[in-house]
Amino acid sequence: MLIFVGMGLWDERDISCKGLEIARKADEVYVEFYTSKLMGTNLERIEEFVGRKIVELSRSDLEENCVWIIERAKERDVVILIPGDPMIATTHSALKYEAERRGVKTRVVNAGSIINAVCGLTGLHNYKFGKSATVSWIKSKTPIDVINQNLSINAHTLLFLDLHPKPMTIKDAVEILMDVESGVGDLFAVGIARAGSENPVVKCDRMKNLKDYDFGEPLHVMVVLAKLHFMEFDCLRLFAQAPDELEEIVE
Amino acid sequence: MLIFVGMGLWDERDISCKGLEIARKADEVYVEFYTSKLMGTNLERIEEFVGRKIVELSRSDLEENCVWIIERAKERDVVILIPGDPMIATTHSALKYEAERRGVKTRVVNAGSIINAVCGLTGLHNYKFGKSATVSWIKSKTPIDVINQNLSINAHTLLFLDLHPKPMTIKDAVEILMDVESGVGDLFAVGIARAGSENPVVKCDRMKNLKDYDFGEPLHVMVVLAKLHFMEFDCLRLFAQAPDELEEIVE
Repeated sequence: MLIFVGMGLWDERDISCKGLEIARKADEVYVEFYTSKLMGTNLERIEEFVGRKIVELSRSDLEENCVWIIERAKERDVVILIPGDPMIATTHSALKYEAERRGVKTRVVNAGSIINAVCGLTGLHNYKFGKSATVSWIKSKTPIDVINQNLSINAHTLLFLDLHPKPMTIKDAVEILMDVESGVGDLFAVGIARAGSENPVVKCDRMKNLKDYDFGEPLHVMVVLAKLHFMEFDCLRLFAQAPDELEEIVE
Repeated sequence: MLIFVGMGLWDERDISCKGLEIARKADEVYVEFYTSKLMGTNLERIEEFVGRKIVELSRSDLEENCVWIIERAKERDVVILIPGDPMIATTHSALKYEAERRGVKTRVVNAGSIINAVCGLTGLHNYKFGKSATVSWIKSKTPIDVINQNLSINAHTLLFLDLHPKPMTIKDAVEILMDVESGVGDLFAVGIARAGSENPVVKCDRMKNLKDYDFGEPLHVMVVLAKLHFMEFDCLRLFAQAPDELEEIVE
């Protein structure tokens, strides 16, 4: 069986008790840090916590060269540890599909993901989030299109920031988005750094102002705001030092 | 400090290692089963696993009568255990706001939620989900409006099913939605039962046909589909026995 185990957001202790138990009993344990990263730990600490030798997979092991790991899972229990929730990245749902298609059973053990964490940190209501998008180092109009689509139905947009070749900061992302369409700088957004850690930073302002705010170390994500429920407004004032003028977008 | 600890989707072992550790060390531990339920366990098993006496909170303890628990958290570490991820229900973000407003520190320990699990079970891409909605026992046009808004930007809709006074099934939900607008019965959807368990049921078909499919015990949720990426189509064929005609909605 090929078992995808989520590791949650920050360090080795964000894995579920069930996930840890399954990894301890598995025949082989792998980890990948390509689709996301755990900034609060490292491979050595994860190995110590799980009590196992763990082999790190490359991008190609997950994509074009994934057949070998599927083959190994035919007669053994093979665990892949994955930062966040295992099925948020399409890479892993494609790997799950490929395994099942070849007759290898799969299982998914969920964990906290950035999608959950942004609601807790900002007070934004989960049901008001629309489609998400990624801001890539290679400039593209896609994130702007998704923001506009979401605004047309009054939905917030969660923006993931590219990790390769290096983790993008909120400052980088705002510059890239404003290069594509300068008008987006006037939209209100919330920047979030180090979700899941004990010292996250959460700040709400117009996007063009977030560019100059010191969010500290990555990983960073950003939420572009649609109209707000009054409770969302109150939370952003209290949790994210939102400016007075945010009141403009309360419904 | 008031600490919201997610318990994940199914049983007592879906809590994170960090969440378990925090609950074991806390001064007082509470649990709530109002906003969601853990169908694979019960209070007694959770108490045994955490090794603590745990008091169940009522809806009013979380809402209009929440002051007492905030007061207790002023000088003690008070943990509230919550099924799923703790900040998906707006009830808990309102409680977090109220605590912080009164000068009580709060912390959130994330866990897997239904929002993550549907992607793993269906192969649907997370970034293509739009706003979510709840189908209530009290008929309302809101879920239909949200489905239509999401379809206008080509986004899938996750529908939560009411839990009170009893957990709604997919059959109930389809009947309620079709009573409000019969045309929705022709839309393709995926029904998901017992996400996070070892025997989930996942079935894709037109909504009107899902009504007669045997999903077994609750909890149930449903995703109404927008146009599909070809990989989503392949996954729904393999994971959810989608009919041939689903190909109509592949982009």
